[in-house]
Amino acid sequence: MKFQKVLELLNNNEISTLKDVINSYNSLDINSIIDQLEGDKKAVVFRLLNKDNAISAFELMDIDNQQQILALLTDERANEFVNELEPDDRAKLLDELPAKVANRLMSSLSKEERDKTANILGYEPETAGRIMNPNILKLNGTMTVTEAVKKIKERYKDIEDFHFIFVTDKKRKLVGYVSLMDVIVADKEDKIEDVMEPNVYSVYTSEDQEKASRLLQKADLIELPVVDKEGRLLGVITADDAMEVLENEATEDIFEKAGLTTSDNEVDRSKRMINGTVLQIWKVRLPFLIITLIGGLTAGAVIGSFEETLEAIAAVAIFIPVVMDMGGNVGTQSSTIFTRALILGQIDRKRFSKHFAKEVGIGASMGMLLGIVTGVIAEVWQQIPGIGFAVGIALALTVTLATALGFAIPFLLNKLGFDQAAGSDPIITTIKDISGLAIYFFLVTHFLGH
Amino acid sequence: MKFQKVLELLNNNEISTLKDVINSYNSLDINSIIDQLEGDKKAVVFRLLNKDNAISAFELMDIDNQQQILALLTDERANEFVNELEPDDRAKLLDELPAKVANRLMSSLSKEERDKTANILGYEPETAGRIMNPNILKLNGTMTVTEAVKKIKERYKDIEDFHFIFVTDKKRKLVGYVSLMDVIVADKEDKIEDVMEPNVYSVYTSEDQEKASRLLQKADLIELPVVDKEGRLLGVITADDAMEVLENEATEDIFEKAGLTTSDNEVDRSKRMINGTVLQIWKVRLPFLIITLIGGLTAGAVIGSFEETLEAIAAVAIFIPVVMDMGGNVGTQSSTIFTRALILGQIDRKRFSKHFAKEVGIGASMGMLLGIVTGVIAEVWQQIPGIGFAVGIALALTVTLATALGFAIPFLLNKLGFDQAAGSDPIITTIKDISGLAIYFFLVTHFLGH
Repeated sequence: MKFQKVLELLNNNEISTLKDVINSYNSLDINSIIDQLEGDKKAVVFRLLNKDNAISAFELMDIDNQQQILALLTDERANEFVNELEPDDRAKLLDELPAKVANRLMSSLSKEERDKTANILGYEPETAGRIMNPNILKLNGTMTVTEAVKKIKERYKDIEDFHFIFVTDKKRKLVGYVSLMDVIVADKEDKIEDVMEPNVYSVYTSEDQEKASRLLQKADLIELPVVDKEGRLLGVITADDAMEVLENEATEDIFEKAGLTTSDNEVDRSKRMINGTVLQIWKVRLPFLIITLIGGLTAGAVIGSFEETLEAIAAVAIFIPVVMDMGGNVGTQSSTIFTRALILGQIDRKRFSKHFAKEVGIGASMGMLLGIVTGVIAEVWQQIPGIGFAVGIALALTVTLATALGFAIPFLLNKLGFDQAAGSDPIITTIKDISGLAIYFFLVTHFLGH
Repeated sequence: MKFQKVLELLNNNEISTLKDVINSYNSLDINSIIDQLEGDKKAVVFRLLNKDNAISAFELMDIDNQQQILALLTDERANEFVNELEPDDRAKLLDELPAKVANRLMSSLSKEERDKTANILGYEPETAGRIMNPNILKLNGTMTVTEAVKKIKERYKDIEDFHFIFVTDKKRKLVGYVSLMDVIVADKEDKIEDVMEPNVYSVYTSEDQEKASRLLQKADLIELPVVDKEGRLLGVITADDAMEVLENEATEDIFEKAGLTTSDNEVDRSKRMINGTVLQIWKVRLPFLIITLIGGLTAGAVIGSFEETLEAIAAVAIFIPVVMDMGGNVGTQSSTIFTRALILGQIDRKRFSKHFAKEVGIGASMGMLLGIVTGVIAEVWQQIPGIGFAVGIALALTVTLATALGFAIPFLLNKLGFDQAAGSDPIITTIKDISGLAIYFFLVTHFLGH
């Protein structure tokens, strides 16, 4: 609706009406409209925004749109703009821009903003330091509430919305926090250190961004302080940034399980798979397909080595799909359960053998049940003496093996320092296809005597 | 470390030391320790907590632990406890408890708390109304800042941590909000309606909880007001609850893609797959495996109908795995891309045909590439004239078909009102196995003349 209206005004060149209309929308709508517009039209609409709307819409945009907008603005306007962003958002943008553009923008920043940004960019990618906002208000514990209010009034305009004030000692070490609520209800003469809460969560700058975000989420925080090795307060991670990190990680895991892997650090993989160029999409999708191809051909070679059996009794080929599919799906279930529980902290790595034994037990019980059912079906259907045994036992063993692989492969990948989600499913598929078919044909040869 | 220490003190019966030790930990550590303890020990440790620690640890627990703790406490203590919870957390707990226990606890609540809880329980499950916290502070726009501060001081103890105050008119309609920061820095004589921000996001009580949580996340909010059809303010959704909803939805999607479906409303599916009983796990894992079994046998029947071809040239069975695996993996990639983009709002349902055409184009291009490579390999390897054509063309068609199914099946399920993640992968697997093998054997018969 809103998008149609904007498009109509744009096409009819009713720019002054459009200016009023677009500025009456909220930043989320503006963002969505700009996202849907093509090419130059993005910049035309963006230029009509008043400053506040422009900044808040820009902050909500994904990196692709931010880059396009920046490229279409005059240098001066672009510089002005990047100067207004929060240091953590700016660092994220500069990270993704071509180095030349990033350097030009960086040099246009005020010294203070440049220092803050450079500071953030100095931390390793994907760490707490990289996503923290260094623009925070610190108070000394010895201040009175009245003095604190005075300091807040002086400084609140430079600082992004915040809801907690962190308290430091003389050495700038984090010692506690007060909420704005505490400040409002406290007695004016109270010392900050008497109203503050001394139990305060914090993470080091080097902490993995996902672990830090998960701590924020588990402890129901909305701001998590980030400190250096000496405990000195450097910034905070806010709930919105943490949510973004966790959402991206979930998307990454979902994508990697489906064999959609990338080597480069893509900000919004899901969107690129929809809107990207064919080559971009190929690069992400083909590698895993080629691994699957090799796995499938190897499994075929196993079948090939039992060619004589096949020639004698062609009907044995009928049960190839069921052996492959069951093993595949059970393995996917197991690896999904394992990787998800690991991420959510529900599995204790030290007690892996206990979890593993239980999973294999479950696999064996399901395998036996499914094996008996399928074996009976096979025998009744094909009426070849012994085929039911071969199919049933092969299925039971393959299902059990698949559960073992589903837990063991991601565990090993994780132990070796790889992302447990990334490569596990193709490896599991290949191993269980090859061994499942080998078991099946071995049993066929054994029971049917070929 | 901390867990070992607690366990040691517990085993040595050093209860008074344990009491000091456990109360010095933060609520996240306490929660994790209680989670790891078995049976009665949970309650022993829990009883040693002082009231504040007990409440905050209880709030962080998952429902399973909450239930166990409640069952082990005396009725009186349990009642006292549930009375202290926030109405939304309490509603979530009552939802999961056996009806008898829930009713007993409900009747023990103070009238005010009972009304609030009953109110929340009156909304449909999985709606914004169900997860909102009705315990909020509302201010009238005509108040001055001084009057507002007075009201905040009177009421802040009854209300969970909050950071925004929502402003209503005489008819209790939501008209804007002020942050606590605004209250601190504003002139004491200002009217609230002059300091407030009138552009305020809100959702109806009937809004889907995932959509509401996503709005909160996209607009970078930490509190999202919930209103009734007349626009009257009833409560707020907080960022921590929204994060929990989004995390649960992501887990649900990941699990359903792997065929781990449940009919009942399980709070923590991932944990139950690790710690549940064998029967609980069977109930979740077997249904999809049985569907796969039927699919696999049907695919086998397709192979069976070409038994004569197989008897003549057994080597054609060698390429069954590659046709099945490639189609399967491409289909999973497509359905993952589609469902994830739909959830993240990157696909416009109205322009489905455009997205679909692009995906099928990508599928055809990848299919041709993979088909040519595999066809050449097949011909060189098996040296049977025509087998390369059969394998190559079958692979190209199967891969293209799999991309089409990967987009179309979840789209159709979504259109028909089902959860697009739940059933799509088994349906895709079955269709592409049957048609892929049919295409392959048809081509074999055609090119190899059997």
